[in-house]
Amino acid sequence: MTRWLEGDQIEQDVAISSRIRVARNIKDYIFPLYLSLEDSDKLTNDVLHTVKEEFRGNNFRFYRISDLTQTERLAYVEEHLISPGLIQKIDKSSFLVRDDEKATIMINEEDHIRIQTLIPGLNLSEAWELCSEIDDKLESRLNFAYDSELGYLTACPTNVGTGLRASVMVHLPCVTMTGNINALIESLRKVGLTVRGIYGEGTEAIGNLYQISNQTTLGDTEEELIDKLNKIIYQVVTKERNTRKYLKEKKGIEIEDKVYRSYGILKNSRLMSSQEAMKHLSNVKLAYDMGFIANKGLKDIFKLMVDIKPAKIQMSSNMELTKEEEYKIRAQIIRDYLSDMEG
Amino acid sequence: MTRWLEGDQIEQDVAISSRIRVARNIKDYIFPLYLSLEDSDKLTNDVLHTVKEEFRGNNFRFYRISDLTQTERLAYVEEHLISPGLIQKIDKSSFLVRDDEKATIMINEEDHIRIQTLIPGLNLSEAWELCSEIDDKLESRLNFAYDSELGYLTACPTNVGTGLRASVMVHLPCVTMTGNINALIESLRKVGLTVRGIYGEGTEAIGNLYQISNQTTLGDTEEELIDKLNKIIYQVVTKERNTRKYLKEKKGIEIEDKVYRSYGILKNSRLMSSQEAMKHLSNVKLAYDMGFIANKGLKDIFKLMVDIKPAKIQMSSNMELTKEEEYKIRAQIIRDYLSDMEG
Repeated sequence: MTRWLEGDQIEQDVAISSRIRVARNIKDYIFPLYLSLEDSDKLTNDVLHTVKEEFRGNNFRFYRISDLTQTERLAYVEEHLISPGLIQKIDKSSFLVRDDEKATIMINEEDHIRIQTLIPGLNLSEAWELCSEIDDKLESRLNFAYDSELGYLTACPTNVGTGLRASVMVHLPCVTMTGNINALIESLRKVGLTVRGIYGEGTEAIGNLYQISNQTTLGDTEEELIDKLNKIIYQVVTKERNTRKYLKEKKGIEIEDKVYRSYGILKNSRLMSSQEAMKHLSNVKLAYDMGFIANKGLKDIFKLMVDIKPAKIQMSSNMELTKEEEYKIRAQIIRDYLSDMEG
Repeated sequence: MTRWLEGDQIEQDVAISSRIRVARNIKDYIFPLYLSLEDSDKLTNDVLHTVKEEFRGNNFRFYRISDLTQTERLAYVEEHLISPGLIQKIDKSSFLVRDDEKATIMINEEDHIRIQTLIPGLNLSEAWELCSEIDDKLESRLNFAYDSELGYLTACPTNVGTGLRASVMVHLPCVTMTGNINALIESLRKVGLTVRGIYGEGTEAIGNLYQISNQTTLGDTEEELIDKLNKIIYQVVTKERNTRKYLKEKKGIEIEDKVYRSYGILKNSRLMSSQEAMKHLSNVKLAYDMGFIANKGLKDIFKLMVDIKPAKIQMSSNMELTKEEEYKIRAQIIRDYLSDMEG
């Protein structure tokens, strides 16, 4: 799993992943919230038929949310393949995921169709290309609700227009450490972007991971929105890099101490909560990106961050795990991963 | 340095060291506090002459406190070779330390002469034998103040009689962890023993190390005092061992997690305070004694506890160290020690 993280990555010392999603609705059906189960089945079949016809070369796996266990649902959310919103209403929603996991088509989330593409590193253009291609293919057979003045119509007015949300997940441990993160978030908000911590509440970011995305979907073309976000992300990347350089110069030994302690804890602990693991893995990623620990295996530490999420751990067992068992398995997975890397 | 820790050790999973000291005064001189510098020199020469005559085979090194730097003085205290009291009045006090460091003769501490013997592990009888032998030799040439009713006379009434203090340093991480330490201290007090944390304030023990010693010096013979202390220490040792067994059974994974984390931090940190080091080294000693980490080199971890004390670290450098430099050197010493052990 978490196959979408494979491949070349651009600016991966700061940018973890680039994501595009577009919201689309089919004219002949009412929005998902009020859609009957019968119509939902009909709509789902329409989408499945389209995918079957249009993507003969590509393999998409299809899952109905109601067919999955709650643990499986959460694991897909943890892998960023589907949105938390999709598993709220289990009777109508389903999704298709491409074999390389870089594209997902969600059916009956807030909108009838949400196409999501995920590319590792900073690569919004590739994500957009892929998303746009899938969108075009679906639109060739499905009658999308579109207004010539407003653009694509969506269940929530905030998505009307392009229906597009572009976002980049960034790792900002040093900007966070120096306390400059709040000013950064504020300045990003002023240019119309949203910043939220990944997995955390509000802006509190677990693992120093932040998702930066466009707020508005109306008024600009898709390319303009993406280009604007891309430029700003490069500024954020530069800010984090400069802060790392500054800290390495001014507080090198303190940072080195901090990241090596995290490394030592991860390599030795026998019980590990998800939240604590994220904190230490963030430090270990920083250790690699700042050149403190040269181990090549640390390049892909974000994969490990995904693999040690609660539902993913639960999936490795046939029995309902207690917290202690979950913590024990997580600590073991991390130790094995880090010792394999060294071996 | 810290040579006194070498040799066979009894009950060393809990008992670190056994110490005997006797207080003696010479009839012809007033107590050290009011002793003139001239008389102090005379008394010192009397002792030196006696040692020279009586211990022809054994080498004692002689140090005047006034000839030592403050860092050197503190390092001798950290090694437990001299008492903190000896370096308070630098003009009159001096000491002789035997080459194997198992015996020290302090001159003009609170009393004219304090003989101290230190044996690793639980071995009060050997400590007493050695102390008694030195005492006899000194007494053969020096006229000790002695009252046929009271016994040896001392500057402080609490030492009158045998002038003897016997103490054992014990490592009680599990009794401390379970919170039973306060009840234990209380019960030891009731049978006339004193318990204090080593290096800590009051009963707060840094590194879970406690010194248990006799309170009274009057009424019993030396052998009775020592025998009584010895029996009680065995009870304390048993209590700590039983608590370890209990915790291993009931909370094995939590203890394992705790001690391995300390091990990981010690093997990786780049900055380390003395107090934090003691906490983790205590856990690592426990890890060895409970069989979690089999590394033989951990058997002598208490030596490392002594070697990373502030003055000992300072002595490794020619310049006055900043706190950060001290912390850096300490972290390095610990990493080197632990990686040497593994290699």
